[in-house]
Amino acid sequence: MSDPIFLRPLTAPDADRGEAVEFGPDKALALDCGRTLTNWRLAYKTYGKLNAARSNAILICHALTGDQFVASAHPVTGKPGWWETMVGPGKPVDTDRFFVIGSNVLGGCMGSSGPASTDPATGKPYGLDFPLITIRDMVRAQTFLIDHLGIDRLMCVMGGSMGGMQALQWTVSHPERVVAAMPIACAARHSAQNIAFHEVGRQAIMADPEWHGGAYYEHGTQPSKGLAVARMAAHITYLSEPALQRKFGRNLQNAGGISFAFAPDFQVESYLHHQGSAFVDRFDANSYLYITRATDYFDIAADYGGVLAEAFRGCKTRFCLISFTSDWLYPTFENKRIAHALNAAAANVSFVEIESDRGHDAFLLNEPQMFATVRGFITAAAASEGVAG
Amino acid sequence: MSDPIFLRPLTAPDADRGEAVEFGPDKALALDCGRTLTNWRLAYKTYGKLNAARSNAILICHALTGDQFVASAHPVTGKPGWWETMVGPGKPVDTDRFFVIGSNVLGGCMGSSGPASTDPATGKPYGLDFPLITIRDMVRAQTFLIDHLGIDRLMCVMGGSMGGMQALQWTVSHPERVVAAMPIACAARHSAQNIAFHEVGRQAIMADPEWHGGAYYEHGTQPSKGLAVARMAAHITYLSEPALQRKFGRNLQNAGGISFAFAPDFQVESYLHHQGSAFVDRFDANSYLYITRATDYFDIAADYGGVLAEAFRGCKTRFCLISFTSDWLYPTFENKRIAHALNAAAANVSFVEIESDRGHDAFLLNEPQMFATVRGFITAAAASEGVAG
Repeated sequence: MSDPIFLRPLTAPDADRGEAVEFGPDKALALDCGRTLTNWRLAYKTYGKLNAARSNAILICHALTGDQFVASAHPVTGKPGWWETMVGPGKPVDTDRFFVIGSNVLGGCMGSSGPASTDPATGKPYGLDFPLITIRDMVRAQTFLIDHLGIDRLMCVMGGSMGGMQALQWTVSHPERVVAAMPIACAARHSAQNIAFHEVGRQAIMADPEWHGGAYYEHGTQPSKGLAVARMAAHITYLSEPALQRKFGRNLQNAGGISFAFAPDFQVESYLHHQGSAFVDRFDANSYLYITRATDYFDIAADYGGVLAEAFRGCKTRFCLISFTSDWLYPTFENKRIAHALNAAAANVSFVEIESDRGHDAFLLNEPQMFATVRGFITAAAASEGVAG
Repeated sequence: MSDPIFLRPLTAPDADRGEAVEFGPDKALALDCGRTLTNWRLAYKTYGKLNAARSNAILICHALTGDQFVASAHPVTGKPGWWETMVGPGKPVDTDRFFVIGSNVLGGCMGSSGPASTDPATGKPYGLDFPLITIRDMVRAQTFLIDHLGIDRLMCVMGGSMGGMQALQWTVSHPERVVAAMPIACAARHSAQNIAFHEVGRQAIMADPEWHGGAYYEHGTQPSKGLAVARMAAHITYLSEPALQRKFGRNLQNAGGISFAFAPDFQVESYLHHQGSAFVDRFDANSYLYITRATDYFDIAADYGGVLAEAFRGCKTRFCLISFTSDWLYPTFENKRIAHALNAAAANVSFVEIESDRGHDAFLLNEPQMFATVRGFITAAAASEGVAG
């Protein structure tokens, strides 16, 4: 199968690209949509060492546009791993003690099977022939990887945003395999506003004539403008209004004043443009369609008669939930809803709301209270499993 | 000059299109950008009768995509006027007592000069050769209309959103001509987040190849897809998260369940699509660029050393400000900022925050407390001017 990483210019040619595991027909992946992937692959990267008891594994699930490069340089951009502040030697998720696994989600574009991968049936990129996927499918795919790595139970599954959704789904679909779970800045379902913003992004991509109905690979092009607009719209939702005001306010690009033209006059405009153009250099537009759709479909309670608590009935996993006060994408009340459901299911749960004006993206930033919470929770989970300190 | 209204299919051919006034070289309009319009026009519509003392005029300023059809059918869509709940016989703004003027803003596309108008210098549509405009320019243009109608002082200037910005600007630029002002759900400046959302919309339009650098008129086309995406993104900001959740939640289009495809599965997606497609039938994409830019440039305090109160120093206008609790586009704190500045300038101001979960668009909806506030304030303004009851 093709590896989309190699289709792009690499600014860091010597970077560690991690590993990938291919699953053949004996490891067919049955999807929620009813289709089955019979030749598929997951790309992953590990940090630290698995102990002899195989009891110190932590799975880090990534957000919408994240990847397996949690704590090492991104092979395309050359930038540091997206959670290097959280994961590494001596960090809150301490790779001197734990075996950390980052895995590119099914549907992604960093080596796992997705719409940019080659369809074995045609020898061409899937495009829109790739099956629609769900968060549950992503998690199901990860169980194959965990099996492949010889791990029976994960000491912890954690992640922010869509990563938190996967962590929650693990505890619902495979509770016996998860000792502890840390869903951060997430929700148990996508709200109408969440869906609406995603649909704007999808429409921006599909409106771009370079999208070619999803078959742009064959045209040697990509819907860069549409994808950039999608990213810009989404990026606003990742930041709080106060943070934008503090960071940019009405600051101008040029001290000379406004230009009376449509080029960026305000620094916030240039910042958004940069976010848009940097994104198209590293992300596949169809993957963006598939992964946003997966999150829109996410609604854990839906499978339990609309009663979220029922999803967690009998679950022995130990939970720690974290939300941020200024996160308006997945606000505190959505996280509290999960905490209430876990309490109603008599699960073991703690919940921390962290004061921050940085909006949803706070989970990716230097938030000392988050780090302290994660360190404490993971230390307790390790102790409960008898993992050496 | 061309009239963009007539370039479009009319679903209500017999509808009243209002009037327009042409200003020749003797009424040149000097703009903030340094350019001057020497042949320009404003389209307007009036309701009720001007009294003998010419003291009962109320100017209604419209929002971003509004127009002069405040209280009568829109000639393109055939839909009721955008503020028929507020303006009409016996309504809070009572056309049995007051002479109400609705005017399409400079830069608009319902008959006033804008980028779709014919450039007298070339005989072709202006496109991007139309000068960039500001809220102050819009207000300056309105003073010519008010002069044309023989009105010295307006009993009231009012409007919501960008209409409220114009009302504020009137009291700063021409305080002696405004007895009372009602800025509703607005701000004295555009925030970084406001600018960011507008820039996403502009980029969506300019990314559409049918935009042709703004010269699409000559290609017999328009950037419909880009404009629809822009409208969809903006529309989300007009509604509150709770209202979206209450109205749509995760309700599906088809009772059969999700489709595992990219067509709209959720009702909120179909609703947004409808908002986008209905908009492109009635609005000019370049006008959208110009008018959003004008609001981004809006910052009253900037001309007064950053001190908003200085803008209102000595102003004798009587103010009433209204905000809505769930409006996150122009939140209550932005409206309070205006109230504080007016108080600091010793102006006559009252401020009402109305409890509503309908977000920014509440000002267009059936909000009894807003109606009662408007009725009371206008009655008091009329009494102060000795307008007969």
